[in-house]
Amino acid sequence: MNGAGNTQPEKATGRLEAFSDGVFAIAITLLVLGIKVPNPSGASGSTPEALWASVWSQWPSYFALVTSFFSVLIMWVHHHTVFRLTRRVDTRLLFANGLLLLFVSVVPFPTAIVAEYLTTPAAPAACALYAGFLLGGSIAFFLLETAAFRESFLDENASASTVRRLRTSYRLGPPLYLAATIAAPFSPWLAMGICTALWILWAITTREC
Amino acid sequence: MNGAGNTQPEKATGRLEAFSDGVFAIAITLLVLGIKVPNPSGASGSTPEALWASVWSQWPSYFALVTSFFSVLIMWVHHHTVFRLTRRVDTRLLFANGLLLLFVSVVPFPTAIVAEYLTTPAAPAACALYAGFLLGGSIAFFLLETAAFRESFLDENASASTVRRLRTSYRLGPPLYLAATIAAPFSPWLAMGICTALWILWAITTREC
Amino acid sequence: MNGAGNTQPEKATGRLEAFSDGVFAIAITLLVLGIKVPNPSGASGSTPEALWASVWSQWPSYFALVTSFFSVLIMWVHHHTVFRLTRRVDTRLLFANGLLLLFVSVVPFPTAIVAEYLTTPAAPAACALYAGFLLGGSIAFFLLETAAFRESFLDENASASTVRRLRTSYRLGPPLYLAATIAAPFSPWLAMGICTALWILWAITTREC
Amino acid sequence: MNGAGNTQPEKATGRLEAFSDGVFAIAITLLVLGIKVPNPSGASGSTPEALWASVWSQWPSYFALVTSFFSVLIMWVHHHTVFRLTRRVDTRLLFANGLLLLFVSVVPFPTAIVAEYLTTPAAPAACALYAGFLLGGSIAFFLLETAAFRESFLDENASASTVRRLRTSYRLGPPLYLAATIAAPFSPWLAMGICTALWILWAITTREC
Repeated sequence: MNGAGNTQPEKATGRLEAFSDGVFAIAITLLVLGIKVPNPSGASGSTPEALWASVWSQWPSYFALVTSFFSVLIMWVHHHTVFRLTRRVDTRLLFANGLLLLFVSVVPFPTAIVAEYLTTPAAPAACALYAGFLLGGSIAFFLLETAAFRESFLDENASASTVRRLRTSYRLGPPLYLAATIAAPFSPWLAMGICTALWILWAITTREC
Repeated sequence: MNGAGNTQPEKATGRLEAFSDGVFAIAITLLVLGIKVPNPSGASGSTPEALWASVWSQWPSYFALVTSFFSVLIMWVHHHTVFRLTRRVDTRLLFANGLLLLFVSVVPFPTAIVAEYLTTPAAPAACALYAGFLLGGSIAFFLLETAAFRESFLDENASASTVRRLRTSYRLGPPLYLAATIAAPFSPWLAMGICTALWILWAITTREC
Repeated sequence: MNGAGNTQPEKATGRLEAFSDGVFAIAITLLVLGIKVPNPSGASGSTPEALWASVWSQWPSYFALVTSFFSVLIMWVHHHTVFRLTRRVDTRLLFANGLLLLFVSVVPFPTAIVAEYLTTPAAPAACALYAGFLLGGSIAFFLLETAAFRESFLDENASASTVRRLRTSYRLGPPLYLAATIAAPFSPWLAMGICTALWILWAITTREC
Repeated sequence: MNGAGNTQPEKATGRLEAFSDGVFAIAITLLVLGIKVPNPSGASGSTPEALWASVWSQWPSYFALVTSFFSVLIMWVHHHTVFRLTRRVDTRLLFANGLLLLFVSVVPFPTAIVAEYLTTPAAPAACALYAGFLLGGSIAFFLLETAAFRESFLDENASASTVRRLRTSYRLGPPLYLAATIAAPFSPWLAMGICTALWILWAITTREC
């Protein structure tokens, strides 16, 4: 902190958290813009059956949206937990957080790619891109966590066992997303399955908010 | 809560509320993106009369926007009321809330479907989708409320009569949205009428914010 | 307020303000989506001169964006001032606020209409729609102000002269926007001029935030 | 401040900051909407190789997004620092802030222009527009800082050396962005290089958040 007499160091963390929350909330809400409204002027678009068929045929969009929504939501929960244990902010933490926010804000792009290509022959590339993107995000999260959990940054009330448990839990991300990225060219569905399994696993094992 | 020395349990609720508020606010503001700007290069687009006619012909968009706007706004008011009576958060509440936010964030999609198809022969399917979507949202809200109103989660100041009144009020949602979903294939307008009546009813009977 | 033991009535106002702030902030930021990126694949799009010409030809978009941006920003400042003088919320205030937020969230639509049609023969209709829309917003604001400035809702510290000054200042909105709406069919530019003059006037006379 | 008995002047700053944070967070998250999803119906879009090539060919979009993301993020950090040293708000500060928010909210537009035109013969115009836009933003920031750092607005805890250091750091923006704008017609890449160097320089020299 600078010498400007900021006597409540939490305040800095507070505003960084609020800003980050905004980016997380906007990113998951923008996912809906990736779902296309079927075109009514098409010849087949004007009967109820045609509309149902058209809405149904977009299931990869819904699957991609749900996967991204909960992956980002879980990341938000973890982000919240990390900052609850952190009592101050420096440049390194600030830019680790900035890198994470960059990945979070761009999530609608790989999500739309998967939505468009999951049922085409280009699915291996689409899913590799998606998993690789989540891999990048999880590495950014790892950098953030490493910056936040330095000795002098930890809240004095943070128990060593809590910090250890969190570190272990988050450490699953990079290797498993890497496995998904490598698997995608051979089996796009295995890649998406790993991404899905991971957010469900974190959802079940999350113990706080 | 974990053992990390969080001595103000309200804080956890506070940040979850702020994040949820963000998603609610963004979702209702994104509804405007579903309204199309008439194309001026069209032959009929360049006179004032043609523009008025073109803007007027989009009335299903405005109707769908207003219905979704107030349905989500009312849900936000209720969300706020529930969390004011709740003093802590666990995984179950967190994910009931996550499911609700998923429905809220996706509202612009069924809204755009109704806007496009309300005056076409596919209206029964569009309105069934819309009402079914609000049904899903009201079930998510019911799960949230059930998770929040457990004995140990209720604020000590929450009177039994307030909680009972809220439960009764919210319980209207799932059966009536179900009725709207079932009615839609026979009468799209009855379905939209039920959805509209429901938000007006809640607006009138809401007693606090 | 209900009997749930909410001993800080300001809290309710606080969350309503935060939610409203979110809608205001999102609405003014979404205005940028109404500006089109010139298409580079067009024959004339690939030289610097063509790009400048193309960017320049969109000046009605920039004018409409700036007008809407500051009109909404001023409304936010006023909204903030009203709520600083108000100490509780009831259904009437809640829904007056909801109506205002509906207008605010939809502002990008009439803005895009003006951007598209200001230089076409349909300008009278576009500007009438725009001014009529701001008229609706100013009426919603008037309803909000009337609901907020009831005797029992005013903060005890709110001086009568402050309240009177605010009422006078806001009262300009409905008649002047009405004049702009009526003038638009005859002179679209007069209508836009009134809308512009109004936000500049409020900007100059605003004395607090 | 007015006579309405607002005994905590910080509150006004607080809400202005929260609103500004919202605009900053939304603007950087909307940048993703400028990245196009390759069209799968194209003849070449249906193989993994074609998708990779298509995604790769959009690299100017990613470069423009990253440059804008961090330029705005840094501006947010600086905005935060300025307001931490400021204890009240008047009309001048309010509208200097409004002008800055106008530039921030419109950033996705010049970003999309650079993304579309960086590899076309129109690159000089696109980069001049982009750098000129950041120049405008940095001038708005300078006006904000000048309005905030008046004697009677400074927090009593703000040390003269901190204020001086900040002023010096921010003063780099206008001349360097001006240089980039002037350089763009001759060398678009030099212009983008200056914009990139500037956010990296600020990132490295930022000492607080």
